[in-house]
Amino acid sequence: MVFFMQAGFAMLEAGIVHPKNVTNILFKNMIDASIAAICYWLLGYGFAFGKDREGFIGDSNYGLRAVYNGSGGGGSDNWQMWFFQWAFAGACATIVAGSVAERAKLEAYFIYSTVLSTFIYPVIVHWVWGSGWLSAWGAYPDSQGNARPIFNRDERSNGMIDFAGSGVVHMVGGFCGLIGAIVIGPRKGRFGPNGEVHTLFEGNTTLQSLGVFILWFGWYGFNCGSTLKISGNLANIAGKVAMTTTIAAAAGAIVTTLLSKIVTGVYDISMGLNGILAGLVAITASCSVVNPWMAFLIGGGAAFVLVGGHYLILKLRIDDPCDACVVHGFCGLWGILCVGIFCTDANVQYAAYPNLNTACGSGEQFAVQVVGALCIIAWVCGTSTFLFLFIKYTVGFRVSEEIEDIGLDASEHGLSTIFPKAEQVS
Amino acid sequence: MVFFMQAGFAMLEAGIVHPKNVTNILFKNMIDASIAAICYWLLGYGFAFGKDREGFIGDSNYGLRAVYNGSGGGGSDNWQMWFFQWAFAGACATIVAGSVAERAKLEAYFIYSTVLSTFIYPVIVHWVWGSGWLSAWGAYPDSQGNARPIFNRDERSNGMIDFAGSGVVHMVGGFCGLIGAIVIGPRKGRFGPNGEVHTLFEGNTTLQSLGVFILWFGWYGFNCGSTLKISGNLANIAGKVAMTTTIAAAAGAIVTTLLSKIVTGVYDISMGLNGILAGLVAITASCSVVNPWMAFLIGGGAAFVLVGGHYLILKLRIDDPCDACVVHGFCGLWGILCVGIFCTDANVQYAAYPNLNTACGSGEQFAVQVVGALCIIAWVCGTSTFLFLFIKYTVGFRVSEEIEDIGLDASEHGLSTIFPKAEQVS
Amino acid sequence: MVFFMQAGFAMLEAGIVHPKNVTNILFKNMIDASIAAICYWLLGYGFAFGKDREGFIGDSNYGLRAVYNGSGGGGSDNWQMWFFQWAFAGACATIVAGSVAERAKLEAYFIYSTVLSTFIYPVIVHWVWGSGWLSAWGAYPDSQGNARPIFNRDERSNGMIDFAGSGVVHMVGGFCGLIGAIVIGPRKGRFGPNGEVHTLFEGNTTLQSLGVFILWFGWYGFNCGSTLKISGNLANIAGKVAMTTTIAAAAGAIVTTLLSKIVTGVYDISMGLNGILAGLVAITASCSVVNPWMAFLIGGGAAFVLVGGHYLILKLRIDDPCDACVVHGFCGLWGILCVGIFCTDANVQYAAYPNLNTACGSGEQFAVQVVGALCIIAWVCGTSTFLFLFIKYTVGFRVSEEIEDIGLDASEHGLSTIFPKAEQVS
Repeated sequence: MVFFMQAGFAMLEAGIVHPKNVTNILFKNMIDASIAAICYWLLGYGFAFGKDREGFIGDSNYGLRAVYNGSGGGGSDNWQMWFFQWAFAGACATIVAGSVAERAKLEAYFIYSTVLSTFIYPVIVHWVWGSGWLSAWGAYPDSQGNARPIFNRDERSNGMIDFAGSGVVHMVGGFCGLIGAIVIGPRKGRFGPNGEVHTLFEGNTTLQSLGVFILWFGWYGFNCGSTLKISGNLANIAGKVAMTTTIAAAAGAIVTTLLSKIVTGVYDISMGLNGILAGLVAITASCSVVNPWMAFLIGGGAAFVLVGGHYLILKLRIDDPCDACVVHGFCGLWGILCVGIFCTDANVQYAAYPNLNTACGSGEQFAVQVVGALCIIAWVCGTSTFLFLFIKYTVGFRVSEEIEDIGLDASEHGLSTIFPKAEQVS
Repeated sequence: MVFFMQAGFAMLEAGIVHPKNVTNILFKNMIDASIAAICYWLLGYGFAFGKDREGFIGDSNYGLRAVYNGSGGGGSDNWQMWFFQWAFAGACATIVAGSVAERAKLEAYFIYSTVLSTFIYPVIVHWVWGSGWLSAWGAYPDSQGNARPIFNRDERSNGMIDFAGSGVVHMVGGFCGLIGAIVIGPRKGRFGPNGEVHTLFEGNTTLQSLGVFILWFGWYGFNCGSTLKISGNLANIAGKVAMTTTIAAAAGAIVTTLLSKIVTGVYDISMGLNGILAGLVAITASCSVVNPWMAFLIGGGAAFVLVGGHYLILKLRIDDPCDACVVHGFCGLWGILCVGIFCTDANVQYAAYPNLNTACGSGEQFAVQVVGALCIIAWVCGTSTFLFLFIKYTVGFRVSEEIEDIGLDASEHGLSTIFPKAEQVS
Repeated sequence: MVFFMQAGFAMLEAGIVHPKNVTNILFKNMIDASIAAICYWLLGYGFAFGKDREGFIGDSNYGLRAVYNGSGGGGSDNWQMWFFQWAFAGACATIVAGSVAERAKLEAYFIYSTVLSTFIYPVIVHWVWGSGWLSAWGAYPDSQGNARPIFNRDERSNGMIDFAGSGVVHMVGGFCGLIGAIVIGPRKGRFGPNGEVHTLFEGNTTLQSLGVFILWFGWYGFNCGSTLKISGNLANIAGKVAMTTTIAAAAGAIVTTLLSKIVTGVYDISMGLNGILAGLVAITASCSVVNPWMAFLIGGGAAFVLVGGHYLILKLRIDDPCDACVVHGFCGLWGILCVGIFCTDANVQYAAYPNLNTACGSGEQFAVQVVGALCIIAWVCGTSTFLFLFIKYTVGFRVSEEIEDIGLDASEHGLSTIFPKAEQVS
């Protein structure tokens, strides 16, 4: 089900871009799922879940050799884990595709998609979900007596809580997309000379809706599937996760719809659909540790982050056609902080971290979330700035103005431009 | 998977309405899933499954407080139950959207969607699936010795059998839609002065097909998922349910296709697709208690109900663009009656009702089904007539003639009308 | 999930054919799922899994009577098996629809769809998955001491290994489609007088992508679901199957994209999407017995088969609009051979065949796969040649040239031709 989100992203993005670039965005979605599979198999999984090196990166089990040689721990757990993790890695790369849509070169895309799923993303996974320095799973003294966690008081230790990836998946994709959108610059004609914003294409709302419904559907795989990490008598938590996920999505949709009705005067379906995604992204970190009314506040809060962020980046003249950096980056950040805001010692037991003594409610967990979020942002923005600048000054990041005019479908995929094509159909 | 049916309804309805109203119908689908989540969380679930009051309504566990306070029975069962039930509530409201499509005001929609998922639908759930007066689950003397069931002979007692909601979900949505379509009146130009019927838009058969395939897929979640209520050694019944569901859908498609070929002379794909849904709706009540050949008769019978109902409502000059009241209402009624026609003491054991001694085959169960169906119709038609008339004389139910002409996408959602939009694309 | 592949095929094929034939191909997809359900229920399942007759065909349990009479073995296993098998039978018929798209009569389609799912396909199922002569499950002396398997040495015996249907499902559909495409002849205007190939319609890449993503998603149900046959401590193999399936699909997509970039100079999304399917078809036979690097070679090899086969059939002036015979037939054959190439005694234990002593690595299993594949091809090509010629000389296989020009949507489904329809919309 998590894989099916690729289809959701594909439809959503195809419904947003101009028809002259639809095939291009679909091609990117298709190929990045494939690139992520190969990269995550060969190296990424080893970097993420291999033997820890100084809390920073994993370093073993490349190509999942340990599993099929029968010499690795966990056996089949690793197959399933890889499959789940691959879908996340693919989602991460796809988010970036939305931010630089309609103007990024395919060759540039191949490069950053490879680097992202081989290195940038797996390092964060290692930090938070592997045995890295931020991890609540690694948050106990290891066999050499070295305590990994950033906060360690007496015999109890904390780690960052990110249940299903508000930070690990969405912030990584979103902030990488933000840097990409800044480096590549806005689409031609997006901003007028006096800062006015032009709508380049109204969008295909049918495809957008289909995409968001598929994503919403897949999100239950995303969030509920993450409960697989939880063993035994806590496994029934999947039902709770399904409910909090639903409430947050609903709150995101309703509040965003109301906000945008107030701001624009109409019921804007694109904003409403993004509101669903905003709520989903925000609840992802905390879905197992909060109650429904908290989920409502988290989803409703995400709506404010979304609408605020939407106008903020426009004011900054950053052009992200799908608002991917707002939905995934900013709302992901909000979700990470919400864990610290809402979690208590009583409900955090559902996060099921081994050997974790929490200090929720005392502000300590909130501090951990802030530190963790800042470090993720620093890592992603740092590495991706370097990456996109490298691309820009080598193979080039952006297509020529001429190609942007006629569309990438014609230039890269051998299709007619939209004009004769439409004639042919009708 | 049940949630995914929302996507199916969205695509199906988007494929039926005129392009000038597509965004509007999509918006309604998006927002009613959200409204249903909030309403069903705050009040609906308590009305449906709370502590019984006189067999009519539940009255406790609002907001699912009992669950997360740890003081309620069932614990995680309730989370899953809520999630499942929410998807049903959303489906119910979505069915109505189809009946009043292309002419209902958004504000009216917000109101009836809220009332339907907060009150009208949960009451029926309480009657049939909760501990209400029609329920086979509540169909035994309670601790005070009061026997709830409508039929109670000696020490055995009956309740209405509706396995996965032909009556509870589909009849409620369908008859509510019927009343809505009557109160709001036909679309402009639908009926000529002499009763002749005009096709307003041929429809997008790709979207319709996608929608129906998604619904068919989701229906396995709907019907098979309902076997979760069944414990222990009967749990393998999911396989049987999958097969009877399939046979009924196939029979519905084939018989409807043949009937409409005879009537219209062509292979009408829209009718065929509705035939699948008709078969699915009809088998929903009895999927666990019938054999494949009965499923074939039930699905085939639903095809006759569908084609007959289609022409009947046209003759009555009722305009239901999606035939939602026929597919869900009339075929749902057929499905409820089929339980009484086909069930025997031998096969009803698969319904797995606790303490239920049946009298199937003697006509008693058929009588229960008839009484139950009539009561559902009376409740739904009564409350929804009141509701829609209230809406009509307060905020107004129908958009102005001018807005109907230019389309709801332009008036409510700030999009261009279809004409300049199409020019922009090509 | 396997059923959902019907939606994938429908969208993929609707995205390939000319808009004037879209409703027709959708209608075929809808109706063949229904026909397959009825045929497979009444006769097909009995032919496939009934009591063995001479290793050729099954002969009992028609209509699954044994199950609901409570007199058959396996009980509920049979319901689930039927459901799973029905989806396969439907897929098989749908593959053929792609090969003869845009020119086959509906009546012809009804006939061959019925024959295929009643007889041609179930016989192969019996051979390979039932208790037939090629089956590894039947590959031990029966109660009369007759040894069924084709290779039988000392007390150990081999059967053909086809885990989830590269041969049983895809080769049957693909080669049947090949014969159909040859018998019906190319679409009007497809080939010029000097053998040059004309593109009749560029295709709707959004629908194609959606279709392939749905198929990819459904394939996990296809391949992982087949592990249901495996009991006990090997059940965790589903994770491995998910990973090998993923790697093969990714390799298929990447290698096909590179190959077609070299050949055509552009990134051809339709070829890339078919590359995913090619990889998936090829890995289907061996997904449980190979390691990731083997999956990479199998998927990559399928890409060569796909691109080579694509140009081969064009050179032979065979017109298969969806390349269905290449993707399913040729790549299915490649997948069957790969089992023989890659399997070893060590990894074939995951195939979990009862009483099977293998001789993998010695070339013996490879020989079994070759013999099995040739027999499948002979059976399918033989019976389908007879079938299509019978259709051709009775009801007729192909529509008139006039109907081909205006499109099947107008002639068979009562829709306007595309020209006035498009005017109506815009």
